[in-house]
Amino acid sequence: MYKKAKLVLVGAGPGDPDLITVKGLKALQAAKIVLYDALVNKALLKHVPEDSPRIFVGKRGGVKKFDQQEINEIIVRCSLQYGHCVRLKGGDPFVFGRGAEEIAYAEQFGIETEVISGVSSAISAPAAQKIPLTKRGINESFWVITGTTRDHSFSKDITLAAGSSATVVILMGMKNLPAIVEAFISNGKAETPAAIIQNGTLPEEKIVAGPVGQLVELAAVNKMGSPAIIVVGEVVKHASNSIIREAFTQLQWMEENGSYYSDAG
Amino acid sequence: MYKKAKLVLVGAGPGDPDLITVKGLKALQAAKIVLYDALVNKALLKHVPEDSPRIFVGKRGGVKKFDQQEINEIIVRCSLQYGHCVRLKGGDPFVFGRGAEEIAYAEQFGIETEVISGVSSAISAPAAQKIPLTKRGINESFWVITGTTRDHSFSKDITLAAGSSATVVILMGMKNLPAIVEAFISNGKAETPAAIIQNGTLPEEKIVAGPVGQLVELAAVNKMGSPAIIVVGEVVKHASNSIIREAFTQLQWMEENGSYYSDAG
Repeated sequence: MYKKAKLVLVGAGPGDPDLITVKGLKALQAAKIVLYDALVNKALLKHVPEDSPRIFVGKRGGVKKFDQQEINEIIVRCSLQYGHCVRLKGGDPFVFGRGAEEIAYAEQFGIETEVISGVSSAISAPAAQKIPLTKRGINESFWVITGTTRDHSFSKDITLAAGSSATVVILMGMKNLPAIVEAFISNGKAETPAAIIQNGTLPEEKIVAGPVGQLVELAAVNKMGSPAIIVVGEVVKHASNSIIREAFTQLQWMEENGSYYSDAG
Repeated sequence: MYKKAKLVLVGAGPGDPDLITVKGLKALQAAKIVLYDALVNKALLKHVPEDSPRIFVGKRGGVKKFDQQEINEIIVRCSLQYGHCVRLKGGDPFVFGRGAEEIAYAEQFGIETEVISGVSSAISAPAAQKIPLTKRGINESFWVITGTTRDHSFSKDITLAAGSSATVVILMGMKNLPAIVEAFISNGKAETPAAIIQNGTLPEEKIVAGPVGQLVELAAVNKMGSPAIIVVGEVVKHASNSIIREAFTQLQWMEENGSYYSDAG
């Protein structure tokens, strides 16, 4: 047991292992033990000293190995036993990461805590596709929302956001995609440009783009799955991205040549 | 002139030079020329090869040296002349950074472009103070808004956000602080916990916390200035932060002992 135990929450970034911060990397290099989640790129673990254990505490095949209370207790035990525990979480540890709960729990045991931010997938997955979340003259804000709430219901913030002028970014939303799309259609926004980015910043990255009203079909046709980011807003159309540009050019052509299209049908 | 010129937009992170990503650092180390902004930590420039020029294109004393069109042209000229130009911007280059405009302009000249995300101050300045932007059971989203719009007016998104359940994060909002506070008061939210963080993640970091209705006085008494992040939401009260905890404990005591307080007055 260490008298001065320390817990460091580190954001691993969105997927690309080089998108961890230098500070996060240094924390990994100094770790006496690392507890990591499912969405963390395993390539990062090679920076951990050889004799420091790396423990997986995430979900495997969608099934939790430990619930949050168990994870909290593991964190405390490991921090006290090893003196310097790194808790490595996907993206940023304070964005839908339950990092705040882990910090608060550990501090009850006199453990010193530190948070090292990570690049959030909410911003970087669109950026890697050259979709800016804000663009001067187009919009003045972006709203980041979880697509899966505590009780697995649909966040009413999504309905509010659909009625706002913000770029809307939804994390963990693929299971509720039909309800999300419906919220935009109900707000008269079926035509708002949108994109789904799966495995953002990784080599297996995939993207589909189109009007938000068509996202369910687009996702099905292109076999899009989790983990994915859903972005809805005019900025999507302003991406410097040939896939997105082509998608919207084709749609425009189909609209303008609608009769030809239905004749062919 | 290089036939295959490349422009790399790199996010420098919020202030702490170790909060740049490993990928951003590698881009700096390979840069043939660097164009950097005012909020970039100068310590990062030491990673640039000695014979690569580092050009400051930001504001000095609030005054622009170049307007955006001039910066766009400098970027193109430098990319073509040096072959590998790094555009180093504070925080994340695609969050209120006009990065998208720079990318789009450069691509017109056949310049290859890449975006390397940075840790946004919107998330990391609160995180460094252990303020989570989301907390399970408390809220399900956060809304990031610019406090200074193109025409220097007040974004109507702030009024909408004040009526929502999102944690509201306002960047570049200090000049419009009275109007921002007023938006929350008008929405019956004067008591919502809030904080202002100046120079987040830097050694000279400063924070004040209290109900949003009192932010103008708190900022004046504590001489808070720019650059700063304003955070409004219940999550502020859930920060593992002794300064914040003390601020709210004292307020509660003053409320409960109001008579004593007014007797003394």
